[in-house]
Amino acid sequence: MNRNIKAVIEFDGSHFKGFQKQTKWGPTIQGVLEQAIGHTLQKKVKVYGCSRTDAGVHACDYTISFKTDNPIPAENLRRVTNKKLPLSIYIKQMDEADPEFHARHLAKQKYYIYKVLRGQRPPVFEHNYKYYFPEEADLKLMQQALDEFVGDHNFKAFSSKHTDVTDFSRSVHQAYLTEEGDELWFHFMGTGFVYHMLRIIVGTVLDVGAGKRDLLTIPEALETGDRSKRSKKVPAAGLYLKEVFY
Amino acid sequence: MNRNIKAVIEFDGSHFKGFQKQTKWGPTIQGVLEQAIGHTLQKKVKVYGCSRTDAGVHACDYTISFKTDNPIPAENLRRVTNKKLPLSIYIKQMDEADPEFHARHLAKQKYYIYKVLRGQRPPVFEHNYKYYFPEEADLKLMQQALDEFVGDHNFKAFSSKHTDVTDFSRSVHQAYLTEEGDELWFHFMGTGFVYHMLRIIVGTVLDVGAGKRDLLTIPEALETGDRSKRSKKVPAAGLYLKEVFY
Repeated sequence: MNRNIKAVIEFDGSHFKGFQKQTKWGPTIQGVLEQAIGHTLQKKVKVYGCSRTDAGVHACDYTISFKTDNPIPAENLRRVTNKKLPLSIYIKQMDEADPEFHARHLAKQKYYIYKVLRGQRPPVFEHNYKYYFPEEADLKLMQQALDEFVGDHNFKAFSSKHTDVTDFSRSVHQAYLTEEGDELWFHFMGTGFVYHMLRIIVGTVLDVGAGKRDLLTIPEALETGDRSKRSKKVPAAGLYLKEVFY
Repeated sequence: MNRNIKAVIEFDGSHFKGFQKQTKWGPTIQGVLEQAIGHTLQKKVKVYGCSRTDAGVHACDYTISFKTDNPIPAENLRRVTNKKLPLSIYIKQMDEADPEFHARHLAKQKYYIYKVLRGQRPPVFEHNYKYYFPEEADLKLMQQALDEFVGDHNFKAFSSKHTDVTDFSRSVHQAYLTEEGDELWFHFMGTGFVYHMLRIIVGTVLDVGAGKRDLLTIPEALETGDRSKRSKKVPAAGLYLKEVFY
């Protein structure tokens, strides 16, 4: 196929079982995209995504790529396909890409944000988009806890028990907190993250901030790979894939 | 049963098939509430709601009532039940009520808001909570159109074809627009509304504002009951039951 297309999409993951197509029941972003783009192209298409995402996780600038022989201009393909997509998925941009571009294989760095709401209980309308944590939490202590994760580490202790990955070495480039009104945003930048890693890190850091866990358990967990030295994962609803860098 | 309880709840209707329990497939607010309250009371309970709502419609201060013999203090019942409810439903308040109180039968006036977003296309995360209408629309003309609906009218032309109601006489007490940032809010106050009536009215008024429909078709439709003289209904996502008055 002579064209390689790159697109940037945005999605509300609330009603989806994650990006990746599955044999199990439930709609996926990939499945819905392949249907809509394939319908416009009048031919089956295989869409590659920059990253797997869990059920309920959102994305702001998620990159996909796919190949086609159809000569339709990219902007027309984008516009026509957007009309077929549910309102929870939107193609923001679509362009010709180099023949060797691949959304997943060439992704160099991923930027995720986890949104935590503090203070007053949020209205029910926000429950799919942030995690509510009403407890007092020490920001400085949480930033110190986040600092422990930066660099090259074995993240086994911060992975799900239900992963089939065997190499837990990952490189976290940045991990920091910002205050955004009543919200606390956890920012993570890195080459890639193992299954549930960011949600487990946020759960652990919040516990440190709330005085329920000693900061020292983090380097211990990183060294030993002992999952009993970390906290439970926070819900998927607060997690956003913000951007992917190539 | 010697106690009558009144409660005010808030719900995100996005994932529900409306308030009212149905024989058809799909979760309803009533069904989920009866399960959670019944579990706390350790006995089956019948919950009455102030109003039917369509699938996808939200509520800010929705009143329910139910009877029980269980002596548990109302505030404890509220707290324990909230822990069993999904994050999309929240009981804001719960109190003892007079024995003759009934959430539906005694409702005197209902206040609904329909939220329309103008200007820039909203992020996908807002699609369940408002209706996006990017066209230019004349606010004064829309307010004039809304004025036509105030008072006692036969709303047959503004009802769904799929209703089994035969008496379409309803009384609209207030119908007005407010601008809230980038949003346009349609406010409706009345004794009650027939199936899809508010969503059809908003669709019609927006068409008048955008210059696609003559204002005069509204009094004509009200007089004749002719459904060809009104526009299509707007989506459920923008509609909120704001409050009920007794």
